[in-house]
Amino acid sequence: MNEKAIVARLAQLAEIGKHAGGIDRALATPQERRARELFAKWARDGGYALTQDAAGNLFARRAGARTDAAPILVGSHLDTVPTGGAYDGAYGVAGAMCALELLDRRGITLQHPAEAVAWAGEEGSRFPLGCLGSSAFTGLWRLEDVLALSASDGVMLRDALNSAAGGLLPDVPARDAQRTAAYLELHVEQGPVLERGGVPLGVVTAIAGQRRYSITIEGESGHAGTVPMQLRNDPLGAAAEVVLAIESSARDAGETVATIGRFTVEPGGTNVIPARVIFSLDVRSPLDDRVSMVEEAAHRALETAQRQRRVQGSMECLEARPPAPMDERMRAAVHRAITGMNERAIDIPSGAGHDAMCLARIAPAAMIFVPSIGGRSHVGAERTADADLERGVEALAAAIIEVDAALGEN
Amino acid sequence: MNEKAIVARLAQLAEIGKHAGGIDRALATPQERRARELFAKWARDGGYALTQDAAGNLFARRAGARTDAAPILVGSHLDTVPTGGAYDGAYGVAGAMCALELLDRRGITLQHPAEAVAWAGEEGSRFPLGCLGSSAFTGLWRLEDVLALSASDGVMLRDALNSAAGGLLPDVPARDAQRTAAYLELHVEQGPVLERGGVPLGVVTAIAGQRRYSITIEGESGHAGTVPMQLRNDPLGAAAEVVLAIESSARDAGETVATIGRFTVEPGGTNVIPARVIFSLDVRSPLDDRVSMVEEAAHRALETAQRQRRVQGSMECLEARPPAPMDERMRAAVHRAITGMNERAIDIPSGAGHDAMCLARIAPAAMIFVPSIGGRSHVGAERTADADLERGVEALAAAIIEVDAALGEN
Repeated sequence: MNEKAIVARLAQLAEIGKHAGGIDRALATPQERRARELFAKWARDGGYALTQDAAGNLFARRAGARTDAAPILVGSHLDTVPTGGAYDGAYGVAGAMCALELLDRRGITLQHPAEAVAWAGEEGSRFPLGCLGSSAFTGLWRLEDVLALSASDGVMLRDALNSAAGGLLPDVPARDAQRTAAYLELHVEQGPVLERGGVPLGVVTAIAGQRRYSITIEGESGHAGTVPMQLRNDPLGAAAEVVLAIESSARDAGETVATIGRFTVEPGGTNVIPARVIFSLDVRSPLDDRVSMVEEAAHRALETAQRQRRVQGSMECLEARPPAPMDERMRAAVHRAITGMNERAIDIPSGAGHDAMCLARIAPAAMIFVPSIGGRSHVGAERTADADLERGVEALAAAIIEVDAALGEN
Repeated sequence: MNEKAIVARLAQLAEIGKHAGGIDRALATPQERRARELFAKWARDGGYALTQDAAGNLFARRAGARTDAAPILVGSHLDTVPTGGAYDGAYGVAGAMCALELLDRRGITLQHPAEAVAWAGEEGSRFPLGCLGSSAFTGLWRLEDVLALSASDGVMLRDALNSAAGGLLPDVPARDAQRTAAYLELHVEQGPVLERGGVPLGVVTAIAGQRRYSITIEGESGHAGTVPMQLRNDPLGAAAEVVLAIESSARDAGETVATIGRFTVEPGGTNVIPARVIFSLDVRSPLDDRVSMVEEAAHRALETAQRQRRVQGSMECLEARPPAPMDERMRAAVHRAITGMNERAIDIPSGAGHDAMCLARIAPAAMIFVPSIGGRSHVGAERTADADLERGVEALAAAIIEVDAALGEN
């Protein structure tokens, strides 16, 4: 690989599904399939053994010295959110391929096979399951249940993967079931921390747990002119207190984010005291007890509002996903690799979900982040500087070497 | 009139425009015209001289001893808000008619003529002007401008008032231009103060001034998982602080209400940090400087948020209406009338607008309130107890006598 291989490969991928606002490559569409075809071409050009599984995951295998060893998997995903960008997922897949080539070019022999992997449907943007391919691969979801998922247009994944338009690649052998020795994923940060800290690399400590809630506060509506302040049971004032209590508890908890993104006030007339406020709450932290702290703070604030403001509050948990800590020995191996490059890295939690969440359930896993310009993510305008992209690939290759060695010590 | 006349007349009016959810009598519709026809019948039955003006206001005149004296006007309106109730407006019109009859029945001769008035279109629910008839009558709006107003269905008021369906009543003479000696209006409170205070009557101190604003806070959107709390410029947290500052300043100001009824958060995704919050603010007080206090508190809170939270706030005043104080001598006369009945009354501001706002610009004016059950208003379920309705009419008749005497002292 030449020095600019990663930049050139991302530019190639970015042409697939490109439109005015960004990139659309939903799972098992013609666009996403063209991206898989490009991955297959890269694998063949590199001399790597290409396989796929029934969920649509693609594997490009670089052989290791120990033919009986389980492989180190290195990957990410090729699908995008609607009107997504050129880096989220694509960087980790193209970067894995570039890292394998870098090892070849440097004449490095690993003990373990190393496979570049393109996981199917991480974004959940067509079929209603995020990390679809890696969920099936790791057994978190049964394959038959995954294949039975229906897209919003009514098409079943099973049929979509059998179609010529967006289906599995022809003439690619099925992958044998086998153990996974370790997992590495290279990804753009999708947030502003590395850029603002002036640090080129991040080693992920854990993928945050996430709980999503719906909070409702019921008060009493009335005429904006005729109900004195002291006789009001205004749910908006109560909601404002709860919003600030949640924000403050997330700040105090540390390594925790709480977001209220949807917020509706009913009935919504400018001259009507609100009857009801309904809002969402999304809390994430690599530490589950911190999520609980914010949840408890929200409960306390609701109780206080009920007592002091004569309103009725309720809070429903819609979804709870535990944190996925990355493996300590894997993280240490990645840090050694980066130190060996004379580069700096910080430990950083991942607030977004990744395929590594699933892989961490079956193998020691680690992730490397590179900076996102302006912290922008999930938009056509997401960017990472070329130098940062190349540095990330170097770090990934070095990490594969360190992990191979660390596994060998087992 | 028998003791239940007011209850029976409100029941008659309530049949006109009635549907499942409430009552619809928008200005110059067949329903509203039928209400005017009923008023005309009452006037003829009572032997009162009926006149109307070009804006659709109707007058039923009880003669006074001094034929050269300007009349005491006593009225309210027959139109309703969409899906309105049976008391708002209707009570003051039917109550004025009942009060004139009570004076007849008791053989009372006044110095001044007294006219029961049905003002046209107070609610602004079809044509885009509240207090339409009283604005035209008092010269606050020029008649030609009022008649040129268009309804949302494109019909001009001039044409609607010329139509057979909803127009002026035939065979009713035009009212001569003449001075107004004084104005009295009987109305349901539309709020909870009298009921909660256990007081049957209120004497209005002033009709509140009102200012309406639109407030916008711009922050920075981002991924709910990847932007740490300390790097966020969340406009919702800022808005929550402004909401609480406004609420607190209105409480501190006294005799002041501040309502945030419309509140939108954009873009509104549960996993997206808000970019922008836009909300309405409606501030009312009988004292204009109190409205200014709340406005200043909102400005200060916005400035603090800008400084501390790196957001951009702006506040636009959409409408400003000064308070309309009621006449002190008229208020004293009403209090004397109520004391003479051995009843209790409290001074109370009116947070809602009324035709008395316009009349107060050309004549000494006063208003009497009776309790609204549960403070409910502008809904089909608005209610006032029969005994309170009857007491209000008694108080109005007694107030007419006191005002007639007070004017005579001039």
